[in-house]
Amino acid sequence: MALVACSQFTPVLGAVSENVDRSLELIREAASRGAKVVVLPELASSGYAFANSAEAAAASEPATGSAVSRWSEAASELGIVIVAGFAETNPAGAPFNSAALLAPDAEPVIYRKAHLWDRERLMFTPGNDLPPVVETPVGRIGVMICYDLEFPEWVRIAALQGADLICAPVNWPVVQRPAGERPGEVVRVQAEASMNRVAIAACDRGGNERGVEWSGASVIVDADGWPLALTDQAADRLRPEPPTVPGASGEAAAAGTASDRLDPATTIIAEIDLQASRTKRIAEYSDVMADRRADLYERFTE
Amino acid sequence: MALVACSQFTPVLGAVSENVDRSLELIREAASRGAKVVVLPELASSGYAFANSAEAAAASEPATGSAVSRWSEAASELGIVIVAGFAETNPAGAPFNSAALLAPDAEPVIYRKAHLWDRERLMFTPGNDLPPVVETPVGRIGVMICYDLEFPEWVRIAALQGADLICAPVNWPVVQRPAGERPGEVVRVQAEASMNRVAIAACDRGGNERGVEWSGASVIVDADGWPLALTDQAADRLRPEPPTVPGASGEAAAAGTASDRLDPATTIIAEIDLQASRTKRIAEYSDVMADRRADLYERFTE
Repeated sequence: MALVACSQFTPVLGAVSENVDRSLELIREAASRGAKVVVLPELASSGYAFANSAEAAAASEPATGSAVSRWSEAASELGIVIVAGFAETNPAGAPFNSAALLAPDAEPVIYRKAHLWDRERLMFTPGNDLPPVVETPVGRIGVMICYDLEFPEWVRIAALQGADLICAPVNWPVVQRPAGERPGEVVRVQAEASMNRVAIAACDRGGNERGVEWSGASVIVDADGWPLALTDQAADRLRPEPPTVPGASGEAAAAGTASDRLDPATTIIAEIDLQASRTKRIAEYSDVMADRRADLYERFTE
Repeated sequence: MALVACSQFTPVLGAVSENVDRSLELIREAASRGAKVVVLPELASSGYAFANSAEAAAASEPATGSAVSRWSEAASELGIVIVAGFAETNPAGAPFNSAALLAPDAEPVIYRKAHLWDRERLMFTPGNDLPPVVETPVGRIGVMICYDLEFPEWVRIAALQGADLICAPVNWPVVQRPAGERPGEVVRVQAEASMNRVAIAACDRGGNERGVEWSGASVIVDADGWPLALTDQAADRLRPEPPTVPGASGEAAAAGTASDRLDPATTIIAEIDLQASRTKRIAEYSDVMADRRADLYERFTE
């Protein structure tokens, strides 16, 4: 069993030092509540809505920069795993939309988003590596970012590599949906988890950025695909009228502090049985991995 | 636009002639309401809960048998497409768990379930062919059966072959789930549809069979993954107290008839814009197929 937290907040565009300060407050708070894994949003250090790659590059840092270094120090000091998104400097051109996995006393593991969403391709360079699955004191943790989750091939690859938990920094924009339905991104996370029997923690962000409204729909699901914790924005099929104060929501919202009032943040936290992800059996004779027909899949040529 | 129906009913174990009679009543009723595609449950002609392969074989027929022939005649007479599950005789051993696609004045297309669920492997022989995608007067229709839907590779292959609509006969057993949640199978159908931008019509069955309680959770979703029509049993996240009389439920329940009282049946019916499935674009620069990184997926070896 492991206590896993998503520390959803509202990064300020381009304000790297301030964003990392804020993220560290939230990480400490989650750790003080017992969290052994803390997930932050995509591009947590930099914000998202850049006008172009030059602006993204100006808010980027190498993996040896302040954001990753400070998260890494916190991971070691607190004895926890941190997964956080940041804009990563690319000496060869447009930056990468990356995530760092920081385990105590271990080198940072960097993943670069392979599936760039919409206008990201105008600002970022796509990654060309498979999602990493890292052995940590908590269990085997896979890392991917936002739109990556919507490619079932990608989640399957992480699960086949043995991930117990996929930690996914995300920035989900609000998109129209029928009344009474959960965000589609949450539905897809539930389905992907259950089809692979892998837990998933997706940490979203809130706020508005240059006209982009963010969903604030963080969710933690178990290996059966059922939500263990989710924000009101992720659950709002149950509540057709979303709350107007994001900081007031969340199944396990942090106690309000001075900075909460300035910067609404919502922490969701859940106890996950990561051992359950190692059992792929779902019925007496059925096993979601053993039942795959890889021989047939390979026969299909695009 | 096409009106698509799922004619959910309760086949009687082993009573092939009676089950096909009943299915033809429901097909005629759906056609009279304008349906151009009618989907029936998995193993609609035979029932499901066989004790062994000999019993399944006794309720099986070749593709030239009465069930497929009668459905084929109805498709031609009514000018509609029918997709229906049946137990298919296998001269070489245990029967196949098959589905027939019957289009007007066309040869039946037979698909044999490739992913056998749980004890089905004790009764049936798995198919070894990819899911067919058939050009029909309504559009391109893909066929797969029940547990096949839970393998994202399989839905992806049907979508990459150009399916506008996947018709899936299913038999979903009731499994435990948290209060307020839709059946996991419905969540997975929604997610698969949206990740591939393909509509899906899954026709379930009702009733109890030798201790197996069936969900009766038929659902029709559009290419965005939103339910266009679903039974109360599929939607019951909205209604924590499921109705006790299945025949009384369904968003578009058929008018009660004498045989409804004997054999509760629920038809769900929805107008689907099948043209929408040919647009894989979901944002200015994003396209669920063009954004795939097939080069990277192929790099992964199991």
